[in-house]
Amino acid sequence: MEDFIDFRSDTVTKPTPEMRQAMANAIVGDDVFGDDPTVIELQEYAAQLLGKEAALFVPSGCFGNQCSIFTHVQKGNEIILANECHIVQYEAGAASIISNAQLRCIDTSQTGGLLTAKQVESLIRKTDWIVYPKTGLISVEQPTSQGKVYPLETLKEIYEVAQKYNIKVHMDGARIFNAATYLKVEAKEIAKYCDSVMLCLSKGLCAPVGSLIVGTKEFIQKATYSRKMMGGGLRQVGVLAAPGLLALKEQTKHLGKDLEVIIRLAKNLKTLPFVEIDDSNIQINMIFFSIKNPEIKSNDLVQYLLEHKIKFGGASSEGVYRVITHFYTREKEVDYLYETLKTYLSKFQN
Amino acid sequence: MEDFIDFRSDTVTKPTPEMRQAMANAIVGDDVFGDDPTVIELQEYAAQLLGKEAALFVPSGCFGNQCSIFTHVQKGNEIILANECHIVQYEAGAASIISNAQLRCIDTSQTGGLLTAKQVESLIRKTDWIVYPKTGLISVEQPTSQGKVYPLETLKEIYEVAQKYNIKVHMDGARIFNAATYLKVEAKEIAKYCDSVMLCLSKGLCAPVGSLIVGTKEFIQKATYSRKMMGGGLRQVGVLAAPGLLALKEQTKHLGKDLEVIIRLAKNLKTLPFVEIDDSNIQINMIFFSIKNPEIKSNDLVQYLLEHKIKFGGASSEGVYRVITHFYTREKEVDYLYETLKTYLSKFQN
Amino acid sequence: MEDFIDFRSDTVTKPTPEMRQAMANAIVGDDVFGDDPTVIELQEYAAQLLGKEAALFVPSGCFGNQCSIFTHVQKGNEIILANECHIVQYEAGAASIISNAQLRCIDTSQTGGLLTAKQVESLIRKTDWIVYPKTGLISVEQPTSQGKVYPLETLKEIYEVAQKYNIKVHMDGARIFNAATYLKVEAKEIAKYCDSVMLCLSKGLCAPVGSLIVGTKEFIQKATYSRKMMGGGLRQVGVLAAPGLLALKEQTKHLGKDLEVIIRLAKNLKTLPFVEIDDSNIQINMIFFSIKNPEIKSNDLVQYLLEHKIKFGGASSEGVYRVITHFYTREKEVDYLYETLKTYLSKFQN
Amino acid sequence: MEDFIDFRSDTVTKPTPEMRQAMANAIVGDDVFGDDPTVIELQEYAAQLLGKEAALFVPSGCFGNQCSIFTHVQKGNEIILANECHIVQYEAGAASIISNAQLRCIDTSQTGGLLTAKQVESLIRKTDWIVYPKTGLISVEQPTSQGKVYPLETLKEIYEVAQKYNIKVHMDGARIFNAATYLKVEAKEIAKYCDSVMLCLSKGLCAPVGSLIVGTKEFIQKATYSRKMMGGGLRQVGVLAAPGLLALKEQTKHLGKDLEVIIRLAKNLKTLPFVEIDDSNIQINMIFFSIKNPEIKSNDLVQYLLEHKIKFGGASSEGVYRVITHFYTREKEVDYLYETLKTYLSKFQN
Repeated sequence: MEDFIDFRSDTVTKPTPEMRQAMANAIVGDDVFGDDPTVIELQEYAAQLLGKEAALFVPSGCFGNQCSIFTHVQKGNEIILANECHIVQYEAGAASIISNAQLRCIDTSQTGGLLTAKQVESLIRKTDWIVYPKTGLISVEQPTSQGKVYPLETLKEIYEVAQKYNIKVHMDGARIFNAATYLKVEAKEIAKYCDSVMLCLSKGLCAPVGSLIVGTKEFIQKATYSRKMMGGGLRQVGVLAAPGLLALKEQTKHLGKDLEVIIRLAKNLKTLPFVEIDDSNIQINMIFFSIKNPEIKSNDLVQYLLEHKIKFGGASSEGVYRVITHFYTREKEVDYLYETLKTYLSKFQN
Repeated sequence: MEDFIDFRSDTVTKPTPEMRQAMANAIVGDDVFGDDPTVIELQEYAAQLLGKEAALFVPSGCFGNQCSIFTHVQKGNEIILANECHIVQYEAGAASIISNAQLRCIDTSQTGGLLTAKQVESLIRKTDWIVYPKTGLISVEQPTSQGKVYPLETLKEIYEVAQKYNIKVHMDGARIFNAATYLKVEAKEIAKYCDSVMLCLSKGLCAPVGSLIVGTKEFIQKATYSRKMMGGGLRQVGVLAAPGLLALKEQTKHLGKDLEVIIRLAKNLKTLPFVEIDDSNIQINMIFFSIKNPEIKSNDLVQYLLEHKIKFGGASSEGVYRVITHFYTREKEVDYLYETLKTYLSKFQN
Repeated sequence: MEDFIDFRSDTVTKPTPEMRQAMANAIVGDDVFGDDPTVIELQEYAAQLLGKEAALFVPSGCFGNQCSIFTHVQKGNEIILANECHIVQYEAGAASIISNAQLRCIDTSQTGGLLTAKQVESLIRKTDWIVYPKTGLISVEQPTSQGKVYPLETLKEIYEVAQKYNIKVHMDGARIFNAATYLKVEAKEIAKYCDSVMLCLSKGLCAPVGSLIVGTKEFIQKATYSRKMMGGGLRQVGVLAAPGLLALKEQTKHLGKDLEVIIRLAKNLKTLPFVEIDDSNIQINMIFFSIKNPEIKSNDLVQYLLEHKIKFGGASSEGVYRVITHFYTREKEVDYLYETLKTYLSKFQN
Repeated sequence: MEDFIDFRSDTVTKPTPEMRQAMANAIVGDDVFGDDPTVIELQEYAAQLLGKEAALFVPSGCFGNQCSIFTHVQKGNEIILANECHIVQYEAGAASIISNAQLRCIDTSQTGGLLTAKQVESLIRKTDWIVYPKTGLISVEQPTSQGKVYPLETLKEIYEVAQKYNIKVHMDGARIFNAATYLKVEAKEIAKYCDSVMLCLSKGLCAPVGSLIVGTKEFIQKATYSRKMMGGGLRQVGVLAAPGLLALKEQTKHLGKDLEVIIRLAKNLKTLPFVEIDDSNIQINMIFFSIKNPEIKSNDLVQYLLEHKIKFGGASSEGVYRVITHFYTREKEVDYLYETLKTYLSKFQN
């Protein structure tokens, strides 16, 4: 199994040898009692890296988003967010179940998941009357699930709108360091336009398990209660914090390379028969393409690649394939994918 | 107070003398025990009128919508509906609080609140995976809060999409008889394209209090539990069912007149200075207009009309005025409104 | 049907002729806009009667309890209350569904539903740690569903405990005037030991539909939002407020008689063969008895009485019969019940 | 810090050297995709060990309990359980927040947290009426938070009652292997009297993080959805499953020793001045004692022990101290605790 090259997601990344060593050597304690020094170190490091007062380790990205939402909103409050974002699409209705939040989704299918300040402002409840829910939160995704990165200016505009109405902004920053790499800024330059950020240690950063939420001391203290209620108070979790520290300190350096190789791949894919891809504006380690030949079936393609030691995600119901690069997919691997696809697709030419 | 003419809403309608008499004479029983014959009569009459198996009396339109939602959906299920509809806009977040439903709103600002089958289908969850919420309900509003009436064909298309994916359709038919009047069909011709309908006895039908939900016997039986849980199991509520019967039997006859007079009013308003109104396609007893003169302030206008015995709603934050006609606003009343507005607006001409 | 004598509950009471007249003549308005003068009058009258700043009309007793709970507590807060009380037993889980409250029930099966201050205090959360829910409310029932009335002293003690920990007390006072009658005090003498009270206009007071909640202005204002969210914002509800005013002003005078006749009945029942009843301490219009003869089946007894124009509730799963008297059950009626039962039971003697 | 002896809880246990090695060497995959072989191995091993069809890794004991509850119950369903159990006392109201469950707590303060089948049966809803919640779950804790172990016979009786009414039984078996050790049976002999069990890999078994839930295949499949919704779908979590396997395979062997040393400690403590302890029936690695001298303050005692390299929990608000032994507290350590306490307490003798 170890020999496969995996393009399905960057969530598949396995821990580096250094991370494995760090787990084995981690100094730990009971973190429910606040006794784990490695967790404390990770939280302090992350807070400083994101320019916030405090941080909290959570088991997953979904957990971090939902824990933040639960901490921010009251029952029945509205959350304004993109229809295409992870919280709406892939978190199993948790915001409604756990936080009783009323989602106000904005169609961003034409902008790759990016919201504008104007759209956000149009949905904010401006009047207090007994029939109206209150706007409780604005949530932005940076980068988006569609691979787009908000310009700092847009984030600033949304944040200004939020502050005008005294509403908090949460950022699903699962891949915030990929966005920072693209924007060529420190992550804190992005984080400063929101009140809380969720960031993942796994995915492109290769830690096996874990995410963080950052914000004010008051927010993080309140979130500690929310985390416990949701079952995320863990014990000797320094064993996960130790590789998490390496993720933040070491692995963030390699994200520029992830972008380089995905661009290299995109340019190559563009030369393939039937492949339709927009390679003009690739911002993170994620591309989308279609294959314009009805004879080529997603299942067959995936099976063919698997036989060639490549794990590949099937097409969506709209026929779109997604490819993600990460620490373990460099020139050699993306070139191998390209060659293998080329061989397969050429069979359909006549 | 009785001398005012009220254009703010048709919710302001007071019971007719016949209704008052019916209340005084109603045969009643304890409806929590199923002992109230007048309630039973009303429920049977309404079910037959809407072409459904059964009906249930509920205290209000909001209550009926939320009781239906609670009965239809599981926690975390998604509801597909128009962003501009009553359930999203004016029901205080109840669907999220009581039913833990995840709203999937579609922007219908350009269609007066009307959805298309294609839009609905695009949001339906087609795959079962642990990360996805399930689509639990589609909700349509007939007529919409913006005064538009779905053509039967569109309702049919939405219903067919729903059935294709085995999803139920609820109709917020608070003013369904106004829609039926416009479409020149019986209400059951509309109701047949959905699994449950909420309809109001108050509003244009003049009953003081009460709404109904209709659907299959199984749905209504389950809704009886939901109603009790929500605190809507009432006792000698035949006193409200009696005027409700008159609302359905007698007052529905007058809705055509409501439409006639609002069209008359619209045509007159169009002649007034500064007034911008689209009178081309008025479908129910509701019109919207703007006044294009920054000197004319909403508060002043409302105050002036009040001094002339007219109750009038202020402009929305977008500067739009809404006027609604009902059983107590006939030619004389709308002409008086027109004349009064004319006098007021003419002061700003020079 | 009108000729039956009904001992099942005081919820079966039909409106008096004066109430029917009041409904027919009620001055009404749209109460969602705060425009109904009769509702305003009722609310002001009730607030003053209970010694509170403000009051709010709600559709039912369940609704009033749940609306109060929703207004008082945060998600996950604990409510301390008697296991045998109405909120736990007969409100369909609403506190958990609508308010996400965690119930902390105290076994009061041996005290007729009465709590002690000591019991209450033992369950209050005294420490703030991330693993603990917070105590959000104490709820007392006066009188209890088992027919017992709290002495003022006990209420005072519970209230003092509550204040010591800064926790609010809600009273389910569905029949608070029956309790006041027994205690020979004004209702406000009871109400002063709690922060909110729910009281019913129906039941022994004969209004067809409706209850009220009372409390501080701030509480009632917040409850107005809760009521709307729960679907209890009604329109021309003055038609229910009008008989409600008569319930409070006139019908409260007759509750002493309800108690007299139930005591008369209890003393008579005690003389019957097989009947086991404790007539030593009857406090409100409600008694419980058993029939110690396995040959006498609940269903047969109920059927026999029904044939003799008496509606009677069947025995509970523990074999206990409950009888309730009200405005329409006076000496003649309870004596007729006694005679009919006597005839029936004597058949089993040999 | 490593030099302290910690008696506060068995949650403080750090991973063994073998566990650290196992983490470093774990074969992992993306468990959200079902790709982690070590997780699969752990789940299969646990299912077989508990005699159930399937198992699911979850981040914590709280998470496992709440995920099971969410999977078992519908909104508003009642859960019958001991007032003193972990789910009521220490899980932050999660059952009400996430699952909208209505708790029906039974006072077990006199039985160390143990329920009887009779108590359970008395609270089961036997009738279906619109006013009644439904009983959705019975939850037992084995062993209890008070250190008591259910005899198999009692569990059997409770399970038979549950089956009679077609209600599921969940077991909070955080320390089920301690109970099995005491009862001298395999864990599956306990687990067979319930439908789902939550068991912890941390605590006395020394794994750093993680718990499991076991049950039928259908239950576990459904729970996989619940886990994702709650944010507990993790990635390369084989790094936690690997030490978890050692916890189940190796560490369970040492629990008998934990019991031996706590009994040794209890017998010694009993000889100390002022100490009041019941050493007659110690069932798991947990004892409770009081110090009957008002001059001896909890804070001072804890501080004194800390200065002597002993971590010790302060007295509860009722003045009760709890001591827990585990893998790292053997004869030497408990004797040192005893000697240190002896020295301290002797100062107060005169």
